[in-house]
Amino acid sequence: MPVSITREIRLDRRPVGRPQQDCFSLAEVTLAPPGPGEVEIRPILLSVDPYMRGRMDDRPSYVPPFALGAPIEGFGIAAVEAAGPDAGLAPGDLVTGMLRWRELDVLPARRLRRLERHGEPLEAHLGPLGMTGLTAYVGLTDVGGLRPGETVLVTGAAGAVGSVAGQIAKLAGCRVVGVAGGAQKVARLRELGFDQAVDYRAGDLPRALRQAAPDGVDLFFDNVGGDQLEAALSLMNVGGRVVLCGAIAQYNDEAPRPGPRNLALAIGRRLTLRGFIVGDYEARRPAFEAAMRRWLVEGRVQADSTIVEGFERLPEAFLGLFEGTNLGKMLVRVGPEPAGR
Amino acid sequence: MPVSITREIRLDRRPVGRPQQDCFSLAEVTLAPPGPGEVEIRPILLSVDPYMRGRMDDRPSYVPPFALGAPIEGFGIAAVEAAGPDAGLAPGDLVTGMLRWRELDVLPARRLRRLERHGEPLEAHLGPLGMTGLTAYVGLTDVGGLRPGETVLVTGAAGAVGSVAGQIAKLAGCRVVGVAGGAQKVARLRELGFDQAVDYRAGDLPRALRQAAPDGVDLFFDNVGGDQLEAALSLMNVGGRVVLCGAIAQYNDEAPRPGPRNLALAIGRRLTLRGFIVGDYEARRPAFEAAMRRWLVEGRVQADSTIVEGFERLPEAFLGLFEGTNLGKMLVRVGPEPAGR
Repeated sequence: MPVSITREIRLDRRPVGRPQQDCFSLAEVTLAPPGPGEVEIRPILLSVDPYMRGRMDDRPSYVPPFALGAPIEGFGIAAVEAAGPDAGLAPGDLVTGMLRWRELDVLPARRLRRLERHGEPLEAHLGPLGMTGLTAYVGLTDVGGLRPGETVLVTGAAGAVGSVAGQIAKLAGCRVVGVAGGAQKVARLRELGFDQAVDYRAGDLPRALRQAAPDGVDLFFDNVGGDQLEAALSLMNVGGRVVLCGAIAQYNDEAPRPGPRNLALAIGRRLTLRGFIVGDYEARRPAFEAAMRRWLVEGRVQADSTIVEGFERLPEAFLGLFEGTNLGKMLVRVGPEPAGR
Repeated sequence: MPVSITREIRLDRRPVGRPQQDCFSLAEVTLAPPGPGEVEIRPILLSVDPYMRGRMDDRPSYVPPFALGAPIEGFGIAAVEAAGPDAGLAPGDLVTGMLRWRELDVLPARRLRRLERHGEPLEAHLGPLGMTGLTAYVGLTDVGGLRPGETVLVTGAAGAVGSVAGQIAKLAGCRVVGVAGGAQKVARLRELGFDQAVDYRAGDLPRALRQAAPDGVDLFFDNVGGDQLEAALSLMNVGGRVVLCGAIAQYNDEAPRPGPRNLALAIGRRLTLRGFIVGDYEARRPAFEAAMRRWLVEGRVQADSTIVEGFERLPEAFLGLFEGTNLGKMLVRVGPEPAGR
């Protein structure tokens, strides 16, 4: 078997503040054929996610930092092109897992999971049926203790996790308020069934939130942090829960910004604030998948995605997350989907 | 029965920032004799507590604000002097409850609880066996989910709640680090069995805490807030719990101060921050009292108290809380203890 030549996107320097295009570079690499237990894969869709910003800094976290001069990696879906001995996968199989940003790659098969499709679009496996859907599901249920009849507030509500979280909360019989940036996203939230949608770019967020949730908030699913977290804390009802899922407003801060000035409210109002990482909840995947597949089939959850075309546009798509250019899940199509599947 | 004349201490103006003596005034009042269901009581010990600062502001909270021109009220122990019909209490009985700052008072008997003594000093009922002990107990167990072998950090560790919390955590088989202000308090924490004691007034608290808890903190019982909360958050281990019990460092702030700059750590480290109010845990009192009585009798919990003598010194004692003039529970003796009990 001959060696293959492919392209990869590397992290060339660590960003200070908001990442720029010149943090990344495109390079050619040579791949050996797959050995025992390995497969050659051709990525089809690659996911860009806010948490990846953290891996660009050189500091300890729940995932190790990206190495400089090495390819970025993130979730993705690929087609198996060739399999070495004992790989347990065959050419044409669709797989998902942590993939390097390469147009072609050779990886141990055990790091990949064969993807089971039941007619849903491929991108659903990186959105509502993937990590972001599981994040919304366990964040609301396991972490947040969602109960019917509650008022639920979701920030980043037009994003990959937030839009699914809001729709699940509606299905659970809750009143749901979403916060997003811009009139288009706010309109989309209304279409998705959110009871109230607030545009944080329209100014005076605390006032707008008070009007949208006049009886306060029982469960707050926070994807944003910063000022939105502070504004929401003031609205929390006694016994309320704050699910700390993400803080995209803060990921590009060059220096740590002050936390919410009203955090001490948590004492008198008996609030629980809880951070979580979806990777801790792998055991919940079967229950989640069963529920989510049903909701998707019945059209009760709609999965928005923004698909950018072209491998070399991965950095652009990633940077767009911090400008909110995406509606729903932001993905990059880097290769063709195999026909007839 | 003749009317009685007594003195009371009133809130005359709402403090801005740190309360001053001139927020309070001493006045004479006339009491009618106890009617049906009422008792005349003579307060013996009155408790001053940090949470009372919140009641001096005119804003909604879990307890209503003190009224201007009316007496302050707080927990206390009193002797029954006279009982009206159907009061269910008799002269000489010791009672505890929310008492007005008066040298003599008439109150509905149903607002008081008869105090059962088994040889312990009277002040124990406002300290380890009272609200502050119950706060430490439920804060660690019900709110914090204390487990043997964990590292527990307590701020305000020489105070009424903190000193009991640290000792309970030691009895539960934990490694305990206490933070207090000044060499004398730090020395006392060591006597009480704390594994490490840190003086926050000695400078560079983050560094001192890192040295005192080189393996991080699993459970943080916070009575202080502000900079101490921020410094401690950085040390929290994955899955750690932060019990938000009080924020005495912030109660006199004239404007809301920024929250911890590192709150977003809670996401990656899967932290839970939870505020609580002891009044929600009245059902836990029997279990708590049984355990605490045993610990006190066996000398396994030592209850520090600072007793200021004289009714008119109640404001001074209260103001002292914010300067840390107390070791353990701060109390004011306002009347004699009945002999032979």
